[in-house]
Amino acid sequence: MSILVVGSVAFDAIETPSGRRDRCVGGAATYFSLAASYFTPVRVIGVVGEDFGLEEENIFIRRSIDTRGIEHVPGKSFFWSGSYMKNLNEAQTLNTELNVFQSFSPKIPAEYEDSEYLFLANIDPVLQADVRHKMPKAKMVCGDTMNYWIKDHAVNLARVLPTLDALLINDGEVKMLAKENNLVVAARKVLAMGPKALVVKHGEYGATAFFGEHVFPGHPHATPFRAPALPLAEVVDPTGAGDSFAGGFFGYVASQPALTPPVFRRAMFYGSVMGSFAVERFGTERLQQLDPSEIEDRFALFRQLSHLE
Amino acid sequence: MSILVVGSVAFDAIETPSGRRDRCVGGAATYFSLAASYFTPVRVIGVVGEDFGLEEENIFIRRSIDTRGIEHVPGKSFFWSGSYMKNLNEAQTLNTELNVFQSFSPKIPAEYEDSEYLFLANIDPVLQADVRHKMPKAKMVCGDTMNYWIKDHAVNLARVLPTLDALLINDGEVKMLAKENNLVVAARKVLAMGPKALVVKHGEYGATAFFGEHVFPGHPHATPFRAPALPLAEVVDPTGAGDSFAGGFFGYVASQPALTPPVFRRAMFYGSVMGSFAVERFGTERLQQLDPSEIEDRFALFRQLSHLE
Repeated sequence: MSILVVGSVAFDAIETPSGRRDRCVGGAATYFSLAASYFTPVRVIGVVGEDFGLEEENIFIRRSIDTRGIEHVPGKSFFWSGSYMKNLNEAQTLNTELNVFQSFSPKIPAEYEDSEYLFLANIDPVLQADVRHKMPKAKMVCGDTMNYWIKDHAVNLARVLPTLDALLINDGEVKMLAKENNLVVAARKVLAMGPKALVVKHGEYGATAFFGEHVFPGHPHATPFRAPALPLAEVVDPTGAGDSFAGGFFGYVASQPALTPPVFRRAMFYGSVMGSFAVERFGTERLQQLDPSEIEDRFALFRQLSHLE
Repeated sequence: MSILVVGSVAFDAIETPSGRRDRCVGGAATYFSLAASYFTPVRVIGVVGEDFGLEEENIFIRRSIDTRGIEHVPGKSFFWSGSYMKNLNEAQTLNTELNVFQSFSPKIPAEYEDSEYLFLANIDPVLQADVRHKMPKAKMVCGDTMNYWIKDHAVNLARVLPTLDALLINDGEVKMLAKENNLVVAARKVLAMGPKALVVKHGEYGATAFFGEHVFPGHPHATPFRAPALPLAEVVDPTGAGDSFAGGFFGYVASQPALTPPVFRRAMFYGSVMGSFAVERFGTERLQQLDPSEIEDRFALFRQLSHLE
């Protein structure tokens, strides 16, 4: 079934120990939709400027992603510039120019209204709540956020959390949101804020899912689940790894008839799989041209990496 | 089959956010042998002072650990005092008194000479090499080390590494030993120093095993394997978690007829299982009185935590 993602579509300039790119299409919605597109039809809502032309849009079109929700407005697209020269695990932001993204007001094309799966990428929680409200038919909603919204927009964020089936954020963000250093206690506190499930991304150590009670019919208390990350000899560019994880995770869920514990578990693996591809090349280069057999082979490798038999 | 462990037997004073203990029996050989004792017979070589009496020795005796190799000499036992108040993931050493451990010269009782499994806990690599040399019948040898030996005793350590079937150290130590920040590249460099396999402990994120070529007959290139750690709502005392991992790991290996890839994988899980028990109480309190069914239940929980089916 179709996933609708709302989030940033941007130009990135990135430098890492492996090299640099001065201008590549990035943004959370871009990574998410490319990763999800290998599993299910994807629709995007975002905003771009006049610098975003057919060449850029083709990155989506070639993966059959529906771009009718990408609004073109006068001005320049969101631009982000970051460096991983000091620390490959954490981007140092060199420059952020919000440009047309500053006044982003998501508009939902009529053709998108029947989307049953909705991903609220990392944007202002006020906009997340607004989109969620306008999509009453969405039967499963996942979302992301970041330290900026957790710190300074906590009240607005608190309104979004209870509407989420799963919140996908990283280790540090969970601890910041819960004001608690122990991961398990922090996870419980975040679940008490409303999301039915919480997926904590640990970067090179994988990801852990925690579940509220009665998330799955017939499974009142689901055990946490930990998916590994792939040990890689070279991480070329970590940008978008988390969004690619979310795309693989939610894309797989949307491709399945129902969200059962085994589906959730496999979705965690597909999330890790897509994250592992994303970081192998700059920007979305690797995610643009994957072969389905590569995805299945890597899924099998993740199984080998973590399973006793 | 019997494991022989050589290492420290000590008194520890520990403070953590959960409380404090002013004097409990600790030391790498203690944690290791208690954890391993649930899987296979264990023999210990260490040295203690006059302050180490029957009460302390009974901690070993009750687990049927052979203590004939614990030498009693005049003076006080090794004493370590540490605090986890600032950081639960890393001990702050408040005081170290080597005492009788200063002049530790491992003596191998004749009854121990037939031990087929040898664990060289974290001691001076000169002593590790000496013990290894005196145990020509040992068919599998594993070892640990620490930043102190890596930094200032590299030449001596380099002589021990090629004699090891598996080196078990933590993330930071692997990177320090290899002078390399990427874990996979660092692991390759450490394997090139001689150990047949490398087990990297990641604390709350579990552990990863890397294999040299042809470690297992018929499996020229074994895939890395990652065992999760158990997400715990309270880590009471992290002391000895790594040694308990090693004890569970090697104890299980020694209990099996041959070291195959599936045995190595299950051993990684039993390592994580014993590490998870160790941190639930102060010192060795939890490891002293486990029920075998608790170990199997937790092993099953680790499987649930990490397996798709």
